[in-house]
Amino acid sequence: MSERRRIVILAESRFSVIDAKTATCVIRYRPDDVVAVLDSVTAGRTTDEVLGFGPPIPVVATLEKALKLAPDTLLIGVAPRGGSLPPAWRDLVRRALDAGLDVVSGLHMFLGDDPELAAAARASGAVITDLRRVPDDIPVASRKAASVDATVVLTVGTDCNVGKMTASMELTMAARRMGYRAAFAPTGQTGLFLDGRGIVVDRMIADFIAGAAERIVLDNAPGMDFVFVEGQGSLLHPGYSGVTLGLLHGSMPDALILVHQPTRLRTLNDEIEIMPLPDWIELHERMAAYLSPSPVVGIAINGWDLTEAEARAWAERITAETGLPAVDPVKFGAELLVESIAAACGMPGPAAPARAR
Amino acid sequence: MSERRRIVILAESRFSVIDAKTATCVIRYRPDDVVAVLDSVTAGRTTDEVLGFGPPIPVVATLEKALKLAPDTLLIGVAPRGGSLPPAWRDLVRRALDAGLDVVSGLHMFLGDDPELAAAARASGAVITDLRRVPDDIPVASRKAASVDATVVLTVGTDCNVGKMTASMELTMAARRMGYRAAFAPTGQTGLFLDGRGIVVDRMIADFIAGAAERIVLDNAPGMDFVFVEGQGSLLHPGYSGVTLGLLHGSMPDALILVHQPTRLRTLNDEIEIMPLPDWIELHERMAAYLSPSPVVGIAINGWDLTEAEARAWAERITAETGLPAVDPVKFGAELLVESIAAACGMPGPAAPARAR
Repeated sequence: MSERRRIVILAESRFSVIDAKTATCVIRYRPDDVVAVLDSVTAGRTTDEVLGFGPPIPVVATLEKALKLAPDTLLIGVAPRGGSLPPAWRDLVRRALDAGLDVVSGLHMFLGDDPELAAAARASGAVITDLRRVPDDIPVASRKAASVDATVVLTVGTDCNVGKMTASMELTMAARRMGYRAAFAPTGQTGLFLDGRGIVVDRMIADFIAGAAERIVLDNAPGMDFVFVEGQGSLLHPGYSGVTLGLLHGSMPDALILVHQPTRLRTLNDEIEIMPLPDWIELHERMAAYLSPSPVVGIAINGWDLTEAEARAWAERITAETGLPAVDPVKFGAELLVESIAAACGMPGPAAPARAR
Repeated sequence: MSERRRIVILAESRFSVIDAKTATCVIRYRPDDVVAVLDSVTAGRTTDEVLGFGPPIPVVATLEKALKLAPDTLLIGVAPRGGSLPPAWRDLVRRALDAGLDVVSGLHMFLGDDPELAAAARASGAVITDLRRVPDDIPVASRKAASVDATVVLTVGTDCNVGKMTASMELTMAARRMGYRAAFAPTGQTGLFLDGRGIVVDRMIADFIAGAAERIVLDNAPGMDFVFVEGQGSLLHPGYSGVTLGLLHGSMPDALILVHQPTRLRTLNDEIEIMPLPDWIELHERMAAYLSPSPVVGIAINGWDLTEAEARAWAERITAETGLPAVDPVKFGAELLVESIAAACGMPGPAAPARAR
């Protein structure tokens, strides 16, 4: 998926930072590949007006308008709870296929297995890519990830959809800027789309969640100083906690970065009060420690709704509360967090410029 | 699966209490349905000689000998790590199908999807049942299981394969003996085979583990005093912990029974030292509490390798260590544990004999 594309992102009626996670992340990290967003509610504006960042990509109301921009791909830009295709979108996806656009989807429901959509793709020569298809040869995990030389870092969070993928991307980019050899190891459909490889762990058969995380680490570690594994869900999420724990026990990280949105007081889906950060830190360290010690060494702030001054103030407050470095990595870069990881894990400084990368 | 059968259990080279969990449990709870066990290593003995309990069912070395006992079903009697069919067994399964025997399997690998085996079944009219096929219409869990009137009890354990299914069966039987209306809610392939319905949660797509547990509770609760949910794995198992946590958060139990084998000092698969029981109790209560308080109210002892006197001595020791009632439910019944649950959950005594059951 990492080759260049001309993408229309489908985000009908849901185009916002919170409701259209996939759309937001692709616009943030692959803006040059996006020609339009399809959403009749915000149509007429540009993506920077809606999201508050990035280049001014047009938002259009209809597929016909998007087709005038010569796209080659329709990307399903939301990750709805449960992962099925909103019924209103079926007709739209079929018409995109009729027009010859490839369709890329991270839904649990495989579009390539849908007879009507598959027939439309065959007729026009379009390709349907279901990002959530996973390998079926993953073994049960057995602590093998602990043995890699690279420093493995997992992002964990105080809720689902709180910025773990973004934090992992920013950590990877910061480490590379600092001269480290760093791999981003995606575990969700958006990360997979951005990076072009990986396993969507929440699609695994439950017995093999940790096995998939183990495989991801083993595949990414060779030749790397850092592997930044994208976290999923949260340890206390009523629906997804199993995925989160499987990732933790399968990836056997050397350190954890906790992602938190300071203005989110209750969880998005279930409206449960989010417990204090020191409790989250202790909970994660405890669940990791029995198999492999893994300290939380920094807090990544999700400050999408904060000004720079507000994000700085929150960082100070969180550091006072937890004793850990805290930063909004999107606004200020994640260098502070990478330094903390390197110190905690006793890593040498980054390679001199002459070192092979 | 709960209708009467004439079963040959396939346990080639693995017929023992620890290696053939499915075989052991079916012989314990449906002995009248088993006509033979197929295992060339222990062939010539009877099952009671090998297992130490139950009626004297013959162990035979070949399928041909088993066929003389007029079986109608071949049950795959082991649950190997990873769930694939040992290669040496393929020929045996095909020959059983050729002979017209139905085949029942709890493997991850679906025998019904194997072209050779499916063709053999079609030719002879035999039926292949893959117990791990799961429904595909399960939603993401959302704490609905907390709302049922029945008292929901989950068994949890200090390792995988430690007796959670057996403890759940014994709790159900004890509660019924005491006059309660009690449902056994299986979550694994053996429980499903014994009970005839349920969902094998470790087969669920990871996002829906907790959703499956929620569905199981909602389906079993109506009209019941107790729902005893079969636990899976352990919270600290390197491969399966995600399933365990998903079950805990999806089933939202009112109380937990911790299952422990006193003579097992290290975990079976990974040889990790098993931590002290008070730590296990605190860990489970903590992971449950954020979503729904669920105290551990008793310890079920797996005493398959203990005499009655030894099991009693261990129960005393464990009660002294934890302050909780402890009993080997297979040897002595689980009434003590049911009493503890009823007291902790403020339940009225069991119904008078006249009450509808």
